[in-house]
Amino acid sequence: MGIRLAELVDILGGQLIGDGAIEVIGIAALGEAGASHLTFLSNPKFRSQAGATQAAALILSSADHALIGGEYAGARIVTDNPYAYFARVAQRFAALAAPPVIPGIHPSASVDPAAQVDASACIGPFVAIEAGARIGARCQVDAGCFIGRNASLGAGTHFYPRVSFLADCHIGKRGILHSGAVIGADGFGFANEAGVYVKIPQTGGVRIGDDVEIGANTTVDRGALADTRIDDGVKLDNQIQIGHNCHIGAHTAMAGCVGVAGSATIGKYCTFGGAAMVLGHLTIADRVHVSSGSLVSRSIAEPGRYTGFYPLAKNADWEKSAVIVRNLPAMREKIRFLEKSLSQTKKEQQE
Amino acid sequence: MGIRLAELVDILGGQLIGDGAIEVIGIAALGEAGASHLTFLSNPKFRSQAGATQAAALILSSADHALIGGEYAGARIVTDNPYAYFARVAQRFAALAAPPVIPGIHPSASVDPAAQVDASACIGPFVAIEAGARIGARCQVDAGCFIGRNASLGAGTHFYPRVSFLADCHIGKRGILHSGAVIGADGFGFANEAGVYVKIPQTGGVRIGDDVEIGANTTVDRGALADTRIDDGVKLDNQIQIGHNCHIGAHTAMAGCVGVAGSATIGKYCTFGGAAMVLGHLTIADRVHVSSGSLVSRSIAEPGRYTGFYPLAKNADWEKSAVIVRNLPAMREKIRFLEKSLSQTKKEQQE
Amino acid sequence: MGIRLAELVDILGGQLIGDGAIEVIGIAALGEAGASHLTFLSNPKFRSQAGATQAAALILSSADHALIGGEYAGARIVTDNPYAYFARVAQRFAALAAPPVIPGIHPSASVDPAAQVDASACIGPFVAIEAGARIGARCQVDAGCFIGRNASLGAGTHFYPRVSFLADCHIGKRGILHSGAVIGADGFGFANEAGVYVKIPQTGGVRIGDDVEIGANTTVDRGALADTRIDDGVKLDNQIQIGHNCHIGAHTAMAGCVGVAGSATIGKYCTFGGAAMVLGHLTIADRVHVSSGSLVSRSIAEPGRYTGFYPLAKNADWEKSAVIVRNLPAMREKIRFLEKSLSQTKKEQQE
Repeated sequence: MGIRLAELVDILGGQLIGDGAIEVIGIAALGEAGASHLTFLSNPKFRSQAGATQAAALILSSADHALIGGEYAGARIVTDNPYAYFARVAQRFAALAAPPVIPGIHPSASVDPAAQVDASACIGPFVAIEAGARIGARCQVDAGCFIGRNASLGAGTHFYPRVSFLADCHIGKRGILHSGAVIGADGFGFANEAGVYVKIPQTGGVRIGDDVEIGANTTVDRGALADTRIDDGVKLDNQIQIGHNCHIGAHTAMAGCVGVAGSATIGKYCTFGGAAMVLGHLTIADRVHVSSGSLVSRSIAEPGRYTGFYPLAKNADWEKSAVIVRNLPAMREKIRFLEKSLSQTKKEQQE
Repeated sequence: MGIRLAELVDILGGQLIGDGAIEVIGIAALGEAGASHLTFLSNPKFRSQAGATQAAALILSSADHALIGGEYAGARIVTDNPYAYFARVAQRFAALAAPPVIPGIHPSASVDPAAQVDASACIGPFVAIEAGARIGARCQVDAGCFIGRNASLGAGTHFYPRVSFLADCHIGKRGILHSGAVIGADGFGFANEAGVYVKIPQTGGVRIGDDVEIGANTTVDRGALADTRIDDGVKLDNQIQIGHNCHIGAHTAMAGCVGVAGSATIGKYCTFGGAAMVLGHLTIADRVHVSSGSLVSRSIAEPGRYTGFYPLAKNADWEKSAVIVRNLPAMREKIRFLEKSLSQTKKEQQE
Repeated sequence: MGIRLAELVDILGGQLIGDGAIEVIGIAALGEAGASHLTFLSNPKFRSQAGATQAAALILSSADHALIGGEYAGARIVTDNPYAYFARVAQRFAALAAPPVIPGIHPSASVDPAAQVDASACIGPFVAIEAGARIGARCQVDAGCFIGRNASLGAGTHFYPRVSFLADCHIGKRGILHSGAVIGADGFGFANEAGVYVKIPQTGGVRIGDDVEIGANTTVDRGALADTRIDDGVKLDNQIQIGHNCHIGAHTAMAGCVGVAGSATIGKYCTFGGAAMVLGHLTIADRVHVSSGSLVSRSIAEPGRYTGFYPLAKNADWEKSAVIVRNLPAMREKIRFLEKSLSQTKKEQQE
């Protein structure tokens, strides 16, 4: 059940310094690792802790390798990015510990004869798959999921229990959708006629790239005419809302409770802190980082970090400040008056 | 599969100028419409684009009809509200393209013998319907929905997959509930006894009018004693939370991620931007428009637009401003001191 | 179907003044109670209304008992906390009115032979229970729920329809989970490698205490290595997000739409208003009360009430204030200049 260090380095790369025959049975934090564990050093401030770790092997950068020197006597795997290396090792241990996925369709599932399910896919109980849907190789569709007409899942994609993936939605390879996610509900589109809303049918789909992860109870609406698009490598946490016709660029990550209104175009390699909100029809450049709780009300053309939330205070202090915030225009007038008045006083003094 | 213009005008009204025998197969934007499409002009700033469109027919107002004159040679449908007319035409095309809904109960569904399901309704796989529930004519209840005891659905209502509609909840005609919506969970009601919460049973229901649409993963809680009420024509987007005993007036619309705390009373024809929040026990007048990301902490008696979110800035600028926001009371003191001091200086000068 | 007052006092305590043989059939508000109802007075400002109530019996404090005197002629139950007493009486009436829960497993449910379901539990249609899961005595698991591998439910716990309770999650006794709740989705953990995210497997579980209630569509993520923990008596409303490795102390309550980022540690007896947000890795002391719509961006060491939201205003007023908020550093410079300038003027005057 363990993995030999030589085997890890064969698969994941990195330079092994020490005995490749050493077998490790899991990964643990620096202070908790024992003689059968692998550990890692990704933050230089834990360097002295790394020197003292009991782990059988240590993943670290070449800089830290040099600095730690003889303090640590175990094996080492030297790599450019010890944290990413740790993630990959942890994935291997998790795969070893996971229950086997047995291909096949649970007898209780309802699969339309006009759907295509790859023989290597695993379809759980109470899954409904409609006509024209295609489920790729090694997909795992857990209990209670719904896959609508003509929807498709690329190879190796995993839907946790109770995902709704509606008609004409598409996701690429190695995707992960968590429980309660809803992909392809109607966008919020209405024409107003004397106060009464007339529904505009939402006939676009949702097109999701490869290596995308979407969190629990997150919703991504279908487009009005064209598709809503989520590009490769995007990571969406839980309880996020993505409006119709949005386009989210590759490798952008959003933390929980973020909301993006319809037709927003978001660049690549962006990050959004929890509960950040983006208004509709905005364009956000690549590599923009929005802080938690901030509302983006205009397009952002320049990369960088942006913030806008009211600072927390003791309630009594907040009450005082908040009243002044509402009266800031009056305060500005006072300052203008003071400026004029002082300049007048000076003039008079000089006369 | 197309629709003749004469047929459209027969059904939807408007004045046809041109050949009623022209058949159109779909609707498209001004710049994308081809010779078999209908298009529309609802925003005067696109008037010149409308003049140049390749569409077979153009929906427009009488004012634009006069102004475009001979520039555009195709057929015209003149109407007061071209955008609403477009929405209705799009609905007809969507209905033509939709897969047929076949009445009947899927063999896997679990329907209590004491529930009433109209023979024209369509009940999908893995739907559970409890005793006393009533499903009206032409209703569509998709895969995995739950309909609780004594709940009822008016004629033509459509529940997308995996809606939870709990006991004693009622919705009128032509409603649309999207996947993951939960109607009738317990309101959040507790008595506090020396720090420990004692649950107050929530025995009211939820009463929803006609023509209401409720988005994916939106939640509407049941009342504590009386019912929570959502009136005719209300449109709720995704991920919205409506607390117990709220009353939302007719034709009010809320964008995604809005939260309304318990016992709030909201008027008719209001709009709430995304992530707007309303505290409990407040009363909001008709025709109030709350901007995105704004928290309503007091009742609003006058119609109009209301806003309250912290303006976004580059993070470094925000840091400077936010510190000052916390210290505004000190800044006000300084201004008061300056005012006094200056007035003293002037007095001395005049002596 | 009624309950005699003597019976109530036997079970729930309190001092009965009046005829114990009186039977009441329900509980109602002071102004609505009739001759067969029980009512309660918990807020002294309704004392005169209590004097005039038509109810058969009145729950009240000893102070109010003395003050109301002979005004009210019915029976009285005198107790320290009339509101909590009312809640307990209402629970008894609700239990009488509830449809009977019949033990057993619905024939459509999919229960792994290696799962343990207590014979007194009630498992609804389309429930999936995986190997190693344990369902305690008198548990009620409604339609469409999912219980993952090795998960466990303590005695008397109730899952409403369509709860997802994933592998290795545990909840104690008398818990209530509402529809759409997702417990145990993966935490949001990635290592960044040249802009691309590498998933860190989330191998911890979720450990929930006794008497916990979790609202509709609320999500609680599993821990990365250790467990996410929700202690006894915690009450979470709807649409809440709790990140991985959070620890929420006993008897803390959170209103709808709250978000707590990963690894936050929250004390006991705290309250969070709707849509409050807590950033990751923070520590919040016991008895901290965070107002609605406030973002907690630093740890809080002292009990008390904390607030931070932008005050709502008419949109035109907000526009003026918001511009100044962004320019506060410039305003502070002006004030500094005024101070210097005035002090200079004074000096010159004195010369």
